[in-house]
Order: sequence, then C-alpha cells, then structure tokens
Amino acid sequence: MLNKIKIGILGGSGYGGSELLRLLLFHPNAEISYVTANEHAGKKVAAVHKNLLGFTDLSFSATPENLAELPQVDVAFFAMPHGAAMSLVGTLAETTKVIDLSGDFRLDDPEVFESAYGRKQTAVGLQKEFTYGVPELFRDEIAEAQFIANPGCFATATILALAPLVSNKLAVGKVIVDAKTGSSGSGAKAAANTHHPQRSNSFYAYKPFTHQHLPEIEQCLSRVGSITSSLVFMTHSMPVSRGIFASCYAETEREVPTQELNEIFSEYYSGRRFVRVVEGSPDINWVKMTNFCDIAVHSSGKMIAVFSALDNLVKGAAGQAIQNMNIMFGLDEATGLLFPGTNP
Amino acid sequence: MLNKIKIGILGGSGYGGSELLRLLLFHPNAEISYVTANEHAGKKVAAVHKNLLGFTDLSFSATPENLAELPQVDVAFFAMPHGAAMSLVGTLAETTKVIDLSGDFRLDDPEVFESAYGRKQTAVGLQKEFTYGVPELFRDEIAEAQFIANPGCFATATILALAPLVSNKLAVGKVIVDAKTGSSGSGAKAAANTHHPQRSNSFYAYKPFTHQHLPEIEQCLSRVGSITSSLVFMTHSMPVSRGIFASCYAETEREVPTQELNEIFSEYYSGRRFVRVVEGSPDINWVKMTNFCDIAVHSSGKMIAVFSALDNLVKGAAGQAIQNMNIMFGLDEATGLLFPGTNP
Amino acid sequence: MLNKIKIGILGGSGYGGSELLRLLLFHPNAEISYVTANEHAGKKVAAVHKNLLGFTDLSFSATPENLAELPQVDVAFFAMPHGAAMSLVGTLAETTKVIDLSGDFRLDDPEVFESAYGRKQTAVGLQKEFTYGVPELFRDEIAEAQFIANPGCFATATILALAPLVSNKLAVGKVIVDAKTGSSGSGAKAAANTHHPQRSNSFYAYKPFTHQHLPEIEQCLSRVGSITSSLVFMTHSMPVSRGIFASCYAETEREVPTQELNEIFSEYYSGRRFVRVVEGSPDINWVKMTNFCDIAVHSSGKMIAVFSALDNLVKGAAGQAIQNMNIMFGLDEATGLLFPGTNP
Amino acid sequence: MLNKIKIGILGGSGYGGSELLRLLLFHPNAEISYVTANEHAGKKVAAVHKNLLGFTDLSFSATPENLAELPQVDVAFFAMPHGAAMSLVGTLAETTKVIDLSGDFRLDDPEVFESAYGRKQTAVGLQKEFTYGVPELFRDEIAEAQFIANPGCFATATILALAPLVSNKLAVGKVIVDAKTGSSGSGAKAAANTHHPQRSNSFYAYKPFTHQHLPEIEQCLSRVGSITSSLVFMTHSMPVSRGIFASCYAETEREVPTQELNEIFSEYYSGRRFVRVVEGSPDINWVKMTNFCDIAVHSSGKMIAVFSALDNLVKGAAGQAIQNMNIMFGLDEATGLLFPGTNP
Repeated sequence: MLNKIKIGILGGSGYGGSELLRLLLFHPNAEISYVTANEHAGKKVAAVHKNLLGFTDLSFSATPENLAELPQVDVAFFAMPHGAAMSLVGTLAETTKVIDLSGDFRLDDPEVFESAYGRKQTAVGLQKEFTYGVPELFRDEIAEAQFIANPGCFATATILALAPLVSNKLAVGKVIVDAKTGSSGSGAKAAANTHHPQRSNSFYAYKPFTHQHLPEIEQCLSRVGSITSSLVFMTHSMPVSRGIFASCYAETEREVPTQELNEIFSEYYSGRRFVRVVEGSPDINWVKMTNFCDIAVHSSGKMIAVFSALDNLVKGAAGQAIQNMNIMFGLDEATGLLFPGTNP
Repeated sequence: MLNKIKIGILGGSGYGGSELLRLLLFHPNAEISYVTANEHAGKKVAAVHKNLLGFTDLSFSATPENLAELPQVDVAFFAMPHGAAMSLVGTLAETTKVIDLSGDFRLDDPEVFESAYGRKQTAVGLQKEFTYGVPELFRDEIAEAQFIANPGCFATATILALAPLVSNKLAVGKVIVDAKTGSSGSGAKAAANTHHPQRSNSFYAYKPFTHQHLPEIEQCLSRVGSITSSLVFMTHSMPVSRGIFASCYAETEREVPTQELNEIFSEYYSGRRFVRVVEGSPDINWVKMTNFCDIAVHSSGKMIAVFSALDNLVKGAAGQAIQNMNIMFGLDEATGLLFPGTNP
Repeated sequence: MLNKIKIGILGGSGYGGSELLRLLLFHPNAEISYVTANEHAGKKVAAVHKNLLGFTDLSFSATPENLAELPQVDVAFFAMPHGAAMSLVGTLAETTKVIDLSGDFRLDDPEVFESAYGRKQTAVGLQKEFTYGVPELFRDEIAEAQFIANPGCFATATILALAPLVSNKLAVGKVIVDAKTGSSGSGAKAAANTHHPQRSNSFYAYKPFTHQHLPEIEQCLSRVGSITSSLVFMTHSMPVSRGIFASCYAETEREVPTQELNEIFSEYYSGRRFVRVVEGSPDINWVKMTNFCDIAVHSSGKMIAVFSALDNLVKGAAGQAIQNMNIMFGLDEATGLLFPGTNP
Repeated sequence: MLNKIKIGILGGSGYGGSELLRLLLFHPNAEISYVTANEHAGKKVAAVHKNLLGFTDLSFSATPENLAELPQVDVAFFAMPHGAAMSLVGTLAETTKVIDLSGDFRLDDPEVFESAYGRKQTAVGLQKEFTYGVPELFRDEIAEAQFIANPGCFATATILALAPLVSNKLAVGKVIVDAKTGSSGSGAKAAANTHHPQRSNSFYAYKPFTHQHLPEIEQCLSRVGSITSSLVFMTHSMPVSRGIFASCYAETEREVPTQELNEIFSEYYSGRRFVRVVEGSPDINWVKMTNFCDIAVHSSGKMIAVFSALDNLVKGAAGQAIQNMNIMFGLDEATGLLFPGTNP
C-alpha cells in the first residue's frame, strides 16, 4: 500500500478519541488529517492528552456543522456523544468511510433505538447502510462496508462470550449476563459516580434491567444463530480504571463437559487473533491496554459459565474501531494493534 | 447486667481476630480474657494490629492443645484456619459457649463437609450441637444455643438476599448468584492472589462452580423454605480491600412488580436492624466497616434481581459473631455494633 | 452534665459536614439542632450521606442570610466553602460558640489572608476573637474561647510534626515539608483532579510554593517557639481517598540521636491522647477514620526527619473540631472520638 | 543492520525480566535466545506472564552455574536478585556484552557496596569494567562499553532531576530528595508490605536515611559536576502499582527564576528523547508503561523544587536497559521504546 489512509477524528477530547489518537499515531498505514474537539479548538492535542507529549504536533480543530468544510479524508471516526453522529455523517464527502463509536447507528429498529437511547433516530435511511462491526463475526461484511457502527464495550464482551453458544445452539432458556465495568467507561468528564474518594471503594449495580447495550447484543446474536433463549443483562461498576468483565450463565439441554466447550470455543475463534480462549478465568489485568478479549468457559452439569474480559477503551472502543478500519481497507486486521498488556 | 462477659479469642493474628479485637475492646459488656496467636505469642496485640495502639495492653498467648489450660471464659471465639476448631472445641470447659468463625461446624452432613473442605469431619458428635448463626433468620435458636457456627461472608450476603424469596416461595427454576469479594477475604497472609501490583488492577472469577460456601447456603435456605429451585454460585475477586457484593437472579411464576418486592423484603426484615432495604443498588462503599447488609431488589417481567452488599470482615465475620454473642447472652443484638460507615 | 450541647451545622453536604454528622450523632453529650445545605434543603440527611441510613431522621435546611432565623444553638460548626463564615458568623446569637472549619479566621493578618485566599478579610474585628484550635498546643486557650478557627488538614499534620522541634529550638536553617494528601481533601464535588480513571493512577505535586496552608503553619509555630528557620512547604496528591502524610526535614546544630528525639517527642506529647509517637514510620492506613496523628522521628548526623500521618477528614477537620468543642464545653477532649482505625 | 542482536535474559520471572521480555519481543533488532527462571524451568513464558499469551513460544530454562552452557549471545541481561550477577558474569563468553539490572556492579568502592547491600563485592576486578548506564548523561561511554550497570529506579529519577543543577553548579548546601515508589518496585514475590488489603490504603516512609540507592546517586552526580552540597534521600511507598515520583529541594546562591530554570533544564536535556521537561508537575499517570522521565522545576526565592516522574519498571529498569543496549549496538537509542503512555 503506497498511500497512507487519511483519517479524520470527530470528537478527540474524550477517552475514545484519546485512544484513537494514541493508536493511530503509531499505525503504519494511517495519517491523521484532523481531530476535532470544540472545547479545545486551537489547543495542541498533547496539551490535553499529556501522554502524547512529544508524539504529535496536531492541534484540535472545531467541529463544523458541515463536515465538508474539513479536509476530505478516507475514513472518519466519530467519537462523539450519542446523537451527534446522526446529524453529521450525511455532510461528509460521499466516498468517505465512517466508523462511529457512539450508539447512533447500532440498532436497526428506530423504535428500539428510541427506547434505548431516549432520542429519535433522525437518520433512518443512513442507519440501514451501517454494518455492526464485530470483526470476529462479520469480517466479510465489514470488508465491504462503507459505514460501521462500532459495538459498545459491554456488548463486545457479551457477544464474544455468547456467540459460540448461540452459533452452536447450545443455550436453552434464560441466559444471565452479569457485567462489570471500570470507571473510564463513564467518559473523560468528571461526574459524581466517578468521584475518586467514593468510587475507589465502591462496587454497585446500575440501570437494572435497562442498560442500552442489551438491544444491540440481542440484535447481533440473532444474526449469529437462532436464540432459543432470552437475555438478562445487568451492569455493575468496578473500582478500577479500565476493564469489562462479563460473567455469562446459560443452561444446556445435555451436559457438555468443560473440555468439549473449550474445544468448541477454540475452534469458533480459530484464526481470530484478538480472542484468546484461556483456562481458569480471564482477568482484566492481563488485557488492560490491549485489543484482546480473553474468554474462559466452564460447565457443571447442564450449567455453563462463560467469562470474558477486555479493555473497554481498546477492544471495547478505539482498538476495535481500528480493527474494523484495517479490514475495510484490506489490511491485516491486526495492523497497529498487536501489542501485549503488562503484568503489573 | 452486672458482670462483663469473659471472652477468649482463639486465633487473633488474622483479619477475623483483628476485627473481633477491635470491636470487643469497645463492647460495653465484654472483657477479653485472652487472645492467642502462636506466631506472635508474647507480643503486644497493638504491635501487630497497629490500629489498636493506645487501646489495649493485651499480649498474644500461645494456643495450648488443651484449652483448659487457658483461663475459663464465658465464650470462646474461634478465628482459626479451617480444621483447627474441630480438634480444640472439645477441650474447653463444659459451660463455655463457642462461636466458630471457620467452616468446621457449618455443615450438618460430614460427607458434604469433606467434599467442600477437603478434610474429614473429626467431630461429628459435636457438630450436631452447633447452630448456624444468621441472626436475622434464627434469633430464637441462637438465643438458646451453646455453640454457634458463624456463617461465611459470601454465604451471609447470599442468604440474606435470597431468604425473602425462598420464604415466600417466589423463586422457581435456577437461581444464579454472581458474588464478588474484596481482597481481605483472602486473609492476613500475603499470597500471590493478593499481591498489590497485580491485584490492584484485577477482576477475575475463581473456583468456578466449586466454592465451599455453596453447601452452607443451600443447607440454610432449605430451612427457610422449600427451595423449588437450585443454586448456581460463582465467586469473583474485586480490586478493593473490603466488601462482598452478591447479584442474585431468580425467576418467578407470575410477574411481581419491584414495588411489591420491596414491600416483601421490607416486611421480611422488619425489626432486623442490620439489614437495610435500599433503593437502586447497595454499594460496598456505604457498608464498609459496618455490620450492615444493604439489599435492593428489582424485577422485570418474571425476572428478579436481588443485590446485597456487606463488609466481609464485619457482617461477614466478626461483627456477625458478636451479634450472635449478644443474642446468646440476652443482650440487644446491636450492642457494640451500632456504628455507621463513612462516606468517602 | 445534664443538658446536651445543642449543635448547629452550617454546610452539611460536603465531606467536613458529613464527618461532623457521623461523629456528632454518636457523641454522648451532643444533640444536633439543625444542619444546612442549600442544594439539599428539605432532603433527608441519610438520603445524601447514605452511610447514615438508619441513624438519623434529620433533614437538611437552607442556610438563611441571617442565622438568627435558625434555632439558637450552643455551638455552630461552619463547614462551608472559604468566604462563607466571614459573612455569617456575626448574625448568630451572641452567646453561641463557633467552630469554623474553613480558612476564614485562621490568619491574624488581613493582608496575609488576602494573599493566601485571594479574597478580602471582611470581618477583621471578628477575626481577632478567634483562637487557632490545635488542642495539643493550646488547650487552655481553647477552653476559654468562644470562637475557634479549626486548622487545615495539612497544617495540623505539619504543626504537630514540627512543634516539638520548634519548642525545643532544635531546628536551624530551612525546614522542608513534603506533604501528601488523599483525594477527599478536594471535597465532595466531582472535579477533573478527582476523576477516578486518572486519579487512581496519579501522583503529582500542586500549587508549588504557594499552598494557602503555609501562612497558618508559620503563624502557629511562631507561637510555639522562636523559629530560627524558615519553612518550605510542598503539597502533593496521592491516589487514595483519605490521609495526609507529611515528611519534614530539618537540620540541627548538634547531632541529636534518634533515641533522644523520640524521648523529646514523647515527652512533648505526654498526656495528648491523639498524638501517638511510633517507631519506624506512621502509615495513613493505621490512622484512617480516626482522630489520631501518628508521628515518627529519625536522625542521621545533624539531619532530622519527622513523619506524621492523619486522616484529613477526622484529625484534619471534623474530629479535631469536635475535640475543640469538647474542650470548650469542659468535657474530656476525647469524648466521642476514642475509636481505633482498622487493619485492612 | 542485517543480523538481529542475540539476547539472553538471566532471571525472567520477576518484574524486571517480565518487562524485558515484553519490550524485547517487539524490538525490531532483537532476538531472544533464552530466558532463565529456575522456579519456572520448562514452563512456557506465556503461562507465567499471561500478558504475553499469543506473543511467544519461549519457555524458561534453568540458570546453570556456568553460563557457557547456554547458547552464546551478543548481550546478556541480568534481572536476578542482588548478588547473583557477581558470581555469574565471569562465566559468559568473553565477547558477550552485559547489562545488569541489579545493584551488583553499580558502586565503584567495594566498601560502599558492602555497606549498602550487606554483602561483599566478590568481583572487584570485574566491577571496574562496568559503566553506570544513564544514557542521558553518559551516552558516549555507554557506546563503547561492554558492561553496563543499569541504574536503580529511585536513582534514575533522582539523578535526572538533579543533574542539570549539579552540572550548572546551582545547588548549595543540603539537597533533600523525598522519593516515592509504587508497589511493583518490591518485585513479583508476594510479601507483607505488598499485601493488597493493607497496601491499597497505605502511605509510609521506609529505610529512613539508609536506602541503598543513595551511594549510587552520589557517585553518579559527582561525575556530572562538583557537588558542593550533600544529599538527604528518603523513600516512601505509594498505594499504586507503577511509578517513581521524586521531589527534590535545593538552595541556590542567587535567585534563579522558574523561567530561567526551565531553560537550563530544557537545554540540558536537548536531544534527550526520554526526558520531557513539563510545566506544573509531572504525574506518574502520564509516564506509566513508558520510557519517559518527565521533569518540572520551580523556584521561590533561593529555593528550587525539581519534580521527576517515571515508570519504575521501564525507565527505572527494563526500558533503560534496552536504551543502553541500543546505544551499545549502534542503534538509535529509542529503537523499540518510542511508545506513549495512556490517559486513563
């Protein structure tokens, strides 16, 4: 590939944008044309994201209402609050590919969207052109796509944990997903629930039975196989900066030994570099700062437990977005993403 | 009450013993006669538990093989590793009451015990005389008891969350308990799984389907009501010092609205000072260093989620042991235990 | 004492107010008449400070501009932002005692105040009547005082570490104070510097050479002895909720062995229940949630290092305020404050 | 460069070895020939360091007493406990370069060594051939060296903070260094001082006036300039996994404004890629997982404060070792080390 991919980042002040910058600055085939952040317009990127000091001279620009005023790019990443991409994507040049990290285009059904996000889907026609970007499941579709709805962090962890069960029609009855997130999932803006004096000793559940990631999980899994079971999805807050841990409980019609399950999972994710099937339990410690989703599976009688762990900002957001970009542009999906985590 | 209760603590170097000391030193009706810790025999208690500096002149003594060599006490608390109380309780004076914080006497069936703890029950006769000490459920029985098996921390959180459902025959089918513990649950001895550089960024599952607290939960709940459902119990490690958080998922035959569930729980725990039925979610932050178990309950259709949170060393160990002592000696169960937690 | 002390708390939504409530609700001689918090006026205290659930039926009231509209109390605690007490204290009944936790009345010199706090001292006359309330140093003066300026958290840790040196004229030349605070020192309102995802992995210096606690430290120590040395005071942020740790470095004219220093410090704080002179190093872990200031002192040649540790919200704020109240009302200074910390 | 550098790692189970592996596996010019760890001999590296799962098929080998039994390598990294390298380095092939991460060869004077490490220097002749490897100060010497003593983590942070002052003869009188470390500095083995339940809420000083890094700091700075001042060095433990933060206090003869100091520091480190002179304060958050040392300097009158922050396992150990290797082999010193940290 001779020319680098020209990249625009819409919304570079949050953690999603921060991680896109960190990863794309070192991507061998990428070149960042612009990064917007209204509140920081004119400021150096490295003055806001101090980890990037010495790595970039980029400055933030403002986000115009008509994106055509910005330089034309090959791909635009949207890392803006829910609702922003809907009104902006249509103003891009026709050939520009789009990867949206928000929830705006994840849900096919406008009514489901409105119910989940508390706002109207104002770009119904556009939404139909979006592909839900789980690279481990939909690689071919992504390769052809112009528009990608990048999955949510909870959704990624849950979908990757359950897809082998659903695809193999193993689960019957209710599937319970007890999911936990680190504090960076709440974003870069200080808020009561991420106030350090309290959060550092906290663990609690939130949005019981109503988290907005449930519909995208159900929609996605229904494409993977016929779900004969229904999902219960519960979200909790952990006192740690990064990480999603999902504990999934399912019942099977016959007893499937742990060993057999491991083979099913390993085969299902054969050739998928960013899913590692591990023994015992995954641990958010081993995947932090990486694009991996580690998964372990166990059974006891007819009960199955699947555990998955990932970094909410990498595999759960920016890393997966870049993995999608790699596939869309014909690159190895792991380009710029093959780095390990750290031990302590 | 004129005379103070004379107290012996067997095993005072661990966190269970440390918390017994902290709480009993301020109990208006208690007087500690001795505290043993072989590794610290002869040392001042406050030199080991530096939080107690200035509060006690007690020194640790060694644990003799025959406890009759120690001063006679009204009640002996055992805070020793599993297996120790079994061989020691029988050497106490006949009138001495016993509260055992280990798992030695919690399980009625010696085979279930051996399977859970990997050791033989060597005091089968004695075991039959033990009462399982959940004060919210068995107050009258505890008042009459000479021997108390103090429940495990996970077990307490789970039992208190599920008892109102079981008692009211609300749950049908599988009940899933996704439980999480802080690092102090692993005890006071340094170990690989509590090594700070790794634990501080960790979240993982452990002992999948095999945690030794499951049988005591099942045994206890079977006394509360007829369980028509079976339990799945899964334990996880949180990167925080103190706290148990249990998320319990159950199905009901008919839809029971959240409001109705709240009434059921509030009524069930009416007059139980240490269970607080809260809105939204409990949080380990609000119960740390306290004897409270906070519980919240929600439903959606026929699914119920019950969340419970407690401090594993207080309501999950030493605090509950003292609550049992209070009841056994005819005191208000809250004596010496009515202190709130802290905000940050 | 037959009648309980009637207490008003002005500003009960922050951490200072929260801790005053927690401690005063259990003070055997105290009775809270009202607690104000404009943003929560009308709400139950326990709905805001959930640790107090079950311990109080108090509700927050609004703070009137004229405090005479509130019930008359024996003592009013001000736990409001800097600047508020200055304009409110004068509206209290003449006989009401005052303990102000803000910086409003700590500095004698209005110019020093303006330079430290960036605002004018608008109550110069009133300020002259305030006693700086370090109970270990000024007990007799506090016993006679109507108005107490409660010291800052950093100031308390530094003053208690240095007073024995200053009083004994041991230090010559520059004294360096390298002080560290936990995140609760920033208050209960969420802000960028206490945003959990970043704060939990942070350590940094702030306000180099300009922290507003320096003048009150200098002013206080000048009363303890003639300082022949000048102070350098530097503040840092630790990634922990509670705690102040001050490392103080001083030079002496002659070599003073560690053993001799320990005797000097122990004698100096003889009869002072809340200062514990310890070996090795104090640790914020052992003083968290307590009213203790632990101090250790070491020398090497002519260099002395003094380490002090306390809980910024208790001995550094609410606990010390109550200790002052106890002295003002002729009670044992330790009333309601004699509880130990916890081990883990 | 056609051939990759053949690398041996002696002691691969600790955090130093773990980080060497993580970084060298991705170094474009490096090829790991072997990695030893007696306790894990025969085990897969990725089974011990789970962050490396999927990145290497290497297995640990045992460390023979005669290193000539291992494959010949171009450079051997020693990441073993103090005392091991002394007895092993001499058994390597004569042409093999050595980079020792322990303290064995850092101190020129055997008596100073014995006093600092409590053991005899048994390789006095060999020691004379070692170069102390601070790349920012001794790049030319390192380029010619066969043997490198890699500096300690505290020493690196302190030396880089003070070298510009010493080199410019700015400091007079005592220099105070108040240094803080994260828990990973204690190594990978679980121990009482890194037990999570206590460490996670701790801050304390240790080894007052006696830390073994002081002599190497003094020895190194004496090469940078004539020190007219003496050092006081005090170490503390922070409740965080990674990071060194050093606060250095010095006096100057004349007042040197902050702005001028910034210019002096920026010029001194001009062309040094891994030292970043920053405004305000450095923060361990921004350098974690990186090879950077961030430094800020401030003055007030004749007092100077220099703050430095680095990752103890990267710039304080493995990263700096690889930086030294790069220089020794004629590569750009930043090869394989130019990655930024992360924001949250």
